[in-house]
Amino acid sequence: MDNFNFYSPTEFVFGKNTEENCGELVKKYGGTKVLVHYGSAHAEKTGLLGRVTASLEKSGIPYVKLGGVKPNPRDTLIYEGIELCRKENVDFILSVGGGSCIDSSKGIAIGVLYDGDVWDFYAKKVSVTKALPIGTVLTIAAAGSEGSGGSVVTKEEGGLKRDVGSDLLRPKFSILNPELTTSLPAYQTACGATDIMAHVFERYFTNTKEVEITDRLCEAVLLTMVKETPRAIKDPKNYDVRANIMWAGTVAHNDIVGVGRSQDWNSHGIEHELSGLYDCAHGAGLAVVMPAWMEHVYKHDVMRFAQMAVRVFGCEMNFENPEATALEGIYRFRKFLHEIGMPINFEELGAKEEDIPVLVEKFGIGDGQTWGFVRLKKADVEQILMNAVKAEL
Amino acid sequence: MDNFNFYSPTEFVFGKNTEENCGELVKKYGGTKVLVHYGSAHAEKTGLLGRVTASLEKSGIPYVKLGGVKPNPRDTLIYEGIELCRKENVDFILSVGGGSCIDSSKGIAIGVLYDGDVWDFYAKKVSVTKALPIGTVLTIAAAGSEGSGGSVVTKEEGGLKRDVGSDLLRPKFSILNPELTTSLPAYQTACGATDIMAHVFERYFTNTKEVEITDRLCEAVLLTMVKETPRAIKDPKNYDVRANIMWAGTVAHNDIVGVGRSQDWNSHGIEHELSGLYDCAHGAGLAVVMPAWMEHVYKHDVMRFAQMAVRVFGCEMNFENPEATALEGIYRFRKFLHEIGMPINFEELGAKEEDIPVLVEKFGIGDGQTWGFVRLKKADVEQILMNAVKAEL
Repeated sequence: MDNFNFYSPTEFVFGKNTEENCGELVKKYGGTKVLVHYGSAHAEKTGLLGRVTASLEKSGIPYVKLGGVKPNPRDTLIYEGIELCRKENVDFILSVGGGSCIDSSKGIAIGVLYDGDVWDFYAKKVSVTKALPIGTVLTIAAAGSEGSGGSVVTKEEGGLKRDVGSDLLRPKFSILNPELTTSLPAYQTACGATDIMAHVFERYFTNTKEVEITDRLCEAVLLTMVKETPRAIKDPKNYDVRANIMWAGTVAHNDIVGVGRSQDWNSHGIEHELSGLYDCAHGAGLAVVMPAWMEHVYKHDVMRFAQMAVRVFGCEMNFENPEATALEGIYRFRKFLHEIGMPINFEELGAKEEDIPVLVEKFGIGDGQTWGFVRLKKADVEQILMNAVKAEL
Repeated sequence: MDNFNFYSPTEFVFGKNTEENCGELVKKYGGTKVLVHYGSAHAEKTGLLGRVTASLEKSGIPYVKLGGVKPNPRDTLIYEGIELCRKENVDFILSVGGGSCIDSSKGIAIGVLYDGDVWDFYAKKVSVTKALPIGTVLTIAAAGSEGSGGSVVTKEEGGLKRDVGSDLLRPKFSILNPELTTSLPAYQTACGATDIMAHVFERYFTNTKEVEITDRLCEAVLLTMVKETPRAIKDPKNYDVRANIMWAGTVAHNDIVGVGRSQDWNSHGIEHELSGLYDCAHGAGLAVVMPAWMEHVYKHDVMRFAQMAVRVFGCEMNFENPEATALEGIYRFRKFLHEIGMPINFEELGAKEEDIPVLVEKFGIGDGQTWGFVRLKKADVEQILMNAVKAEL
């Protein structure tokens, strides 16, 4: 097992009606003037935004509002948020939405306290040394940003999608009410579930041997998602199903399922170029990329893919031919994604084979290679995307 | 799923040589004068204590030392620690040892800032509202106190063993170096492993339905322990095995495997009377009590015990007779405990049947009943202890 630090200081407040506590929680963590940052008109229509601001008012905490976060959040709104926070002397950001909203809030949180261009953090020119504190009221189980120190943002100009990470970006508190997710359409539910599973797989495929505890924790989240996701599609109002998925989404990405070993993250990197170019849902892009990546790399460690097949997808181990088990596991994962309504190839995603050179170019490794479970060169990325173009069951 | 708060803000610093960071970590969390609290001469002999104090000196942090913590830590040493901290103006406690040492440190941490008798907290007369910050350097995988907000202490006079819990008692940081555990004798290793598994089982047996994610996380820790414990007994110097067990011990007790549902804890309650009376190792007491408790309560939810049998102990499900599967699971658990060298009945533990009335009396429920998976009355506790007296494979 590799040495590691694990630090997840966020207070998670989970369950029905928990958004009513947000005023008191902001106060507990020292906020005196709040930016309420949110996404769509959905939060307004459902009354959630009203309940959040009512809670702030009840706790005597003044606030300003900034809506308009889009999926694949843009740098442009972050600049606007930074300016607003400075003008209004905001000292706490309350993010009401999904991963995009939280990631946008994190961008604002580091930008407010930085004299230069906030994109410097995403371009890896500077590291995060301070940030405004953040709280979240989560509305979709997917990105895990409510418990993570990461933020992924798209540069409006050119569609570059880049990330920044720091423990300073972990929210002080996150309110998770599964009831807020029961009205999500099936497609968004499935996109979120795919993202959650991908967060685990990025950590599951490792070159570090003998980390049984982390393997088993990964499998715990994956088994939960395999059981609960189809139930959420069929029975969207089922509270317990939504609750299991919502908490699994947090556990999948606060790194408890990743510690003590090398991780991969190449599927995420490749997908970012797809959603950067086509503005598709991140989860949908992952559904297309991840099995294609698996097909390209499984020979690197056949037994690890066989383990996934047996432990997660209930395959019988083929002791005479472990490779067949490995491939059966990948097949079942893609079939699972298809059955929950995800695209599994370029056509279904709305991507085009002729764009592959552009996607590879934007991926930006030049003649180098990536880090990860299998280090990818340009030709590997091309092959993975080609696998994705023509994938079928 | 029930509403819950999950808050585990401890920074875990895991791996080889990590104790060398303790000076910097104390500084990071604001300590300026430290009490180094430790247990046996072991920490001195192995040089660990020297490495810890050298790290404090390197960071320019003055300290005083207080050794002498025993297994089943006593209130008497806590009083001594409180006095020393006040005299020396200590503002940070660094605990170098196992669960007993950390629990003793937590007692001191709340006692220093309280005008009354620190036993008031354990007697549940007052709640914790403040505590000195604590850091730990863990030397045995077992109690999980390095990540929990709990402390269990024995009153020297009368042998009453009682607990206190508060998020304020969660350590600021915990240093976990598995190398420190490779010299542990097999018996202590097995006691620790039993405690870890018991911490999971206390959470696994719940009356809350449909908490798949927490079930699976529980099973992840249990499966790891079933695999790794016999390896640690056979091959004590194996770093990876020790690392898996050490991290499993933390995950088992920071409540990530317990959230969203009712828990039990009656086996711990009953065991506390055993180790209170006989001063036996807590893990050894649990090995005797827990399977006996399972035998007494399994009919309350046969399918949950069958799930444990199948998912954790690899039993084949008997679809015609689930009860047989449930009982097979309990048998395999006891057999596992026997095989790792744990006592499984009163005689092997050094307990006496004729003491049962005393044990039941000390358990102190009178004519009432406990909380938990199955609410126990006096007669149930007697029966569980009787099961334990005569247990065999």
